[in-house]
Order: sequence, then C-alpha cells, then structure tokens
Amino acid sequence: MKLSKKIQAMELSPIRKFVPYADAAVAAGKKVYRLNLGQPDIKTPKAFFDTVKNFDQEVLAYANSQGEASLLEALVGYYKRIGLDFEKKDLLITNGGSEAINMLMTAILDNDDEVIMAEPFYTNYKTFVGQAGGKMVAIPTTADDGYQYAVREKIEGVITDKTRAICIINPGNPTGKVLTHDEMKLIVDIALEHDLYIIADEVYREFTYDGKEMATFGSFKEAEQNVIIVDSVSKRFSACGARIGSIASKNQELMGNLMKLCQARLCCPTLDMLGAAALYNLDPSYFDDIKKEYEYRRNVSVEALKEIEGIKFGVPEGAFYITCQLPIDNAEKFLMFLLQEFDVNGETVMFAPAGGFFSTPGVGQSDIRIAYVLKAEDMRAGINIIKEGIKAYNAR
Amino acid sequence: MKLSKKIQAMELSPIRKFVPYADAAVAAGKKVYRLNLGQPDIKTPKAFFDTVKNFDQEVLAYANSQGEASLLEALVGYYKRIGLDFEKKDLLITNGGSEAINMLMTAILDNDDEVIMAEPFYTNYKTFVGQAGGKMVAIPTTADDGYQYAVREKIEGVITDKTRAICIINPGNPTGKVLTHDEMKLIVDIALEHDLYIIADEVYREFTYDGKEMATFGSFKEAEQNVIIVDSVSKRFSACGARIGSIASKNQELMGNLMKLCQARLCCPTLDMLGAAALYNLDPSYFDDIKKEYEYRRNVSVEALKEIEGIKFGVPEGAFYITCQLPIDNAEKFLMFLLQEFDVNGETVMFAPAGGFFSTPGVGQSDIRIAYVLKAEDMRAGINIIKEGIKAYNAR
Repeated sequence: MKLSKKIQAMELSPIRKFVPYADAAVAAGKKVYRLNLGQPDIKTPKAFFDTVKNFDQEVLAYANSQGEASLLEALVGYYKRIGLDFEKKDLLITNGGSEAINMLMTAILDNDDEVIMAEPFYTNYKTFVGQAGGKMVAIPTTADDGYQYAVREKIEGVITDKTRAICIINPGNPTGKVLTHDEMKLIVDIALEHDLYIIADEVYREFTYDGKEMATFGSFKEAEQNVIIVDSVSKRFSACGARIGSIASKNQELMGNLMKLCQARLCCPTLDMLGAAALYNLDPSYFDDIKKEYEYRRNVSVEALKEIEGIKFGVPEGAFYITCQLPIDNAEKFLMFLLQEFDVNGETVMFAPAGGFFSTPGVGQSDIRIAYVLKAEDMRAGINIIKEGIKAYNAR
Repeated sequence: MKLSKKIQAMELSPIRKFVPYADAAVAAGKKVYRLNLGQPDIKTPKAFFDTVKNFDQEVLAYANSQGEASLLEALVGYYKRIGLDFEKKDLLITNGGSEAINMLMTAILDNDDEVIMAEPFYTNYKTFVGQAGGKMVAIPTTADDGYQYAVREKIEGVITDKTRAICIINPGNPTGKVLTHDEMKLIVDIALEHDLYIIADEVYREFTYDGKEMATFGSFKEAEQNVIIVDSVSKRFSACGARIGSIASKNQELMGNLMKLCQARLCCPTLDMLGAAALYNLDPSYFDDIKKEYEYRRNVSVEALKEIEGIKFGVPEGAFYITCQLPIDNAEKFLMFLLQEFDVNGETVMFAPAGGFFSTPGVGQSDIRIAYVLKAEDMRAGINIIKEGIKAYNAR
C-alpha cells in the first residue's frame, strides 16, 4: 500500500526512538538514568490535581474549540503579570505546544515554503514543517561558536523569497541559549524587513539563570502582527502529561484561520484544561524555587561535563538542556553501546543523540542532548557514566 | 502577512461556527435546544472519573507516544470481545478520532491525491484531507436515494488513478446509514481491486437499531492490509471531553510510519488515557441500555420530523444523527432566523446546516443535520420549533 512521500521523509524522534532499548536494559536488570527526555522529576502543583479531582459534572463534555473559558482567563492574567496585554480573542488552547507548532505550519506554509531555525533545533519542528509540505532551513551554529545564531549575516544568509517564518525557541532547546534584548530586537528588525512571522516558542520562559532577565517577543509592539507566542504547561509547571499548550497572537487574520483547525479537531481535553487554569493562576513566586533548583542542576551538570576530556559545549543560560559534542565517532552507536554493552555498577545512562537536531548533512553526528531534569546526584551519576563509557567505547 | 492557500481554502465547522449566535440567544433570555453537536447528555461512566480521581503519582508525566499500556491492553480486550484479534502493536492512541484522521491523511496523501467518501460526509474529514494537501471526492447521495452509497457504479464512478482511500463512517454520520455485510463486502472487493485503503470510522459501532447487527471492516481478513479502523471513546462512552481516539491496523508499514507523527506530538493526555482504559474494560452489557435509549430517541425524533410538511430524510439505522432536507431556501439563513428572530414560548433550536457536509457545489443548501443526543422530550420540543419556524420563515 502506498504511503505519502512526506511521511516517508519524516524520522522517528531521536529523543524517543531509543526508549525500547532503554526499557530492555532495565528488563536486563540495569538502572538507566534517563537524560534523553525533558521530563522533570519536579512535582506537578497540587492545584492541578485538586481541580481535576473536584470536577463534579456527570458528563465529560466537549469544551469550546478555542479553549475552556477559565483557562483562557487564567492565561490572560499570566500574560498580564509578565507585561503582555493579550486578550481572550488573542489566544487559542492547543494539545501541547506540539499541536500549536503543527497548526502554525499548516497556516503559513504552502509546498516548498521555508522556515528558518537555528541548528541544532528541537527536532519535532522538522516533522511539523514537513507535514505542512514546507522545508526547514537551518541557521548553522555549533559548539565552537557557542550556538550563537542571533547574527544578521547568519540569519539573512539563509533567507530566500520562500522564507515565511523564523522559529525561535527562547530560552533554547536543545542548547540553552538565551537571547539578550538586543539580539531579540535584531531578529524583530530582520522579520519586519523581510515580512516574516516570528514563531516564538517560549515554553521555558521562566527558566533563565545567572540573573539573566526573562524576555519575550510579545513585548515588541512594532512586530505584533508578525509575532506568534507558543506556550505550554508541560515544562513551566512540570505537567507534561496534561498536553496543554497555547498560541498567542495579535494577528487576528491568522487567529481566525487557525480557528478552522481548532474546530476541525473539536477541542482539547476538558479536565486537563481546567487543571491548567489552576496552574496559570498560581502565584508567580512558584517559579522562584523551581528556577533555583534548575540552576543548581545546571551548575552540577556543567561541572560534571567539564570532567570529560575532549568534550565541547556552550554553558546553557536557560531552559534545562545541554547540547555537547563528544569525542566519539557516532552518538547513536555510542548510546546503543551504553544501553546494551556497558554499565557502571549495574547503572547506565540514556541521552538524545543530537544528529536529528541538525539538517546540515553529516553535522552533529557526535553531538548529544542531555536534559538536566533529574536531581543533582542523578545528573552527576549519569554524566559520570557517559565519561567512563567514552573511555570504554573508544578503547574497544 | 501571508497565509497558506490550504488554510484559506478550509472552512469553519458548520457544526460549531454558529455557537456564538446560540450563546447570544441564551444571553438574550432564550432557551436553545442544541441539536447541532454530537454531545450526548448520557452520563459518563463513573469508572472514568474514579480512575482519574485515584491517580496518586506526584508528577503528571509524559506517556508513551503509542499510548498508555493499560489503555492499549483494554483496547485489545475490547476488540477481542467483538471478534477482532488486534494486538498492542496494531494500535495507536490518538487525541480523539480527529487526530487519527489527521494522521492518516498525512500518512497516505501527497499533493492532489484523492480520498473518496459518501456525500453528505462528516465535514471535518474535508479539513484534514485539505491539511494533507489532498482532495475530497464525493460519492453523491441524497435524501431521495436514502443516502445509499454502497453501489459499485457510484463508487467506481469517482475512483481515479489518484484515489488512495475510501473513507467510511459506519454507522454513518451524518445520515445514520448502516452498511449490511454484503455492502461492506462490496466495498472491500472494490478496495482490493483498486488498491485503496479503507479508513473505517466505526466510533458509533454499538449504536445500531431495529435489530441490525453490528459489523466491522476489521472482520475482513482478505483486506487486513487495506483496512484501518478509527475508534473513539467520545460517543461510545459519552466521554467527548476526554479526547481519546485510536487507530487499529494490521498494516505494520503504515503503523510504523504513523509512529513518527505520534512521537512528534509526544503523547496523548495521561489521565484521560487511564480513564479511557477503565471505559474499555466496562462489561459490554453497558451498551444495552444506552442503545435502547438512542433507539427510543431516534423513534421519537423520526415521528416528530414526519410532522414537518415537505421534509425529506432517510430513517437512520444507527449512530445518532438525522440529515434531512427542509422546505426552505437556505439552512444557514433559516438557522440565523431561529436564533435571532424566532422562538416558541421563549425557546428556540440549533442544528447543523448541512451544506458544509457536501462538496458538490450548490447541493445540500436546504439540508440540516440534527443529533438526537438529548432526552426524548427535548428532541420533540426542538423539532417542533423547527416545524413552527419553517412556517414563520417561509411566511416572511
């Protein structure tokens, strides 16, 4: 039976496709530190579960296609607290940030239209761009240049007459790069000059370190018709399993068209939206401890990684990922070695081989992404296994 | 800012786009019988809520991209009880039946590839076909021919070298048509002869009336590489707000490719999947009373509709919709009249204008779809308002 060219061109997620091998390692009696997935071990706020458990209607009915009113109102309040004046009409609730990206690509891309994004990029963007018939064009960055992409020449070097949008994950996944206000302004200027959408994925907004202040593309009034903010409760509130994301934009023509897709899939899960409303109503002080904890885990992880001879990486300024280049030939082969042939006292480790985060052929084969979502001692232990594993792998 | 041609070609859902006007009517003090949406007033089984409320993990984590193991196992058991031997590897959990259709169109359609489907069709299929760059080709049927599409000449009349699949909703939405075993066999033979996928949307499987036996395309072994079963808990268990659907197929190449899309969107909502597992583990006797209730509501609705002079419709044999042609010029104008200018003792009614369920230009403008999801007296009252409304509308 025939399959579409576009799905055949897609790839399994490098973050998830090795899970069966990790499960096999566990079945074989090994402990596996899972640094591959951005799944925090931080407790989901009780407010979410309380709201879900207090649901007292007898029929679990469809919700509004735009989103539950209580969640839209909570999101308006959340944005107001960070200085953005989005109203309910400027918001759409989505099935995670993932559906937001999927819908946006459908809304702006025709066949062969292009989206530019710093490489390494969060790999699932490529799948959604491909699903819409478009092409992901990379702004190349590497560990050597600190994964810096906010450079006029670099960005304009890949813009063509088919470029429709620049996608920015800030704070960055998978590099932890956090843009300065000047760097954001540069991107805004370029987007205005070239009539591009700015798809600003700010799901890690609160997680910036070293006193770096949180910034948002939503604050650039001059670009409010270009800017689209993607958010999610997954990382922000450690509620990945709720699958509640959102799109915020002042571009009413775009939002009106996106509603066609929202109505076609009817609605997001009702209970999870109610729970997410409780999350967005939490006092902002909630983030203080979380941010401190992630900054501590980052520091511990960076120190541990520095122990690895020949490693290259930029110290992340936000989010909770580190992309590093390891002194090995191939990260996927190395991961399979760790899961199938190696352990330190019965323990091994899993990370995301980052080759799939690059679209430039051959680039990134020795790169990996680790998520510092586990408590400090687990990060230390996992990274030490990578260190010992490299010696054993290269000594074979 | 530029928008894609494909999203501009899409339409808002005729089932949902009038909701704001119904809400306005309510705000103006009217009671509105909502017969537009397939939202049953049947209680969601307590087992769903109990499972969700008993969730005791502290972190609401991502689930497996394929679906929660407990739900996959429950689904295997459900299929076994109806005589189908799907294993876990043959199943994928989706965000409602909607995402299942969206993923399937992405997996099988390249630009300008065609999908054929009986007209009138559940309108959202057209949106998902369009999102994948494909074209919905209608097998025309009308109230006059009882919405009969299982006719070799009719089906082969629209098959071209670009046809990739035939989509069947059985029992039917919006017509309530239920295929006989011979009619299903005819469709299976045609699919095999022309190498087409059969996308069998059987979300209303249990709801067949007049002693008509439930059948499934999953029972045709000779076509197991062609057949794809779409299911959902929404209607089956009156759990529309859970947004849990599924794809079942023995075509492992297809399923392997669909996993790329499943991994890109990470997972379905964790709590809702756990609740859905409890639903699929319910004793099949659960359906006995539900089915009786819907059959009763159908009978009451049909009797009430027969009171409308000049109406044309086929008596539904399953699901819970009736599509009828009214003696009016335009169903959308008539609906706006009912919501904005008309009432019977302060009450009015909402239905889905069915024009959007047809792709043949100009056809279906006087057709409407009503869902008999409300209790009998509400159905009687709502249909009576349609009857009185027609007189007033045509007398203006």
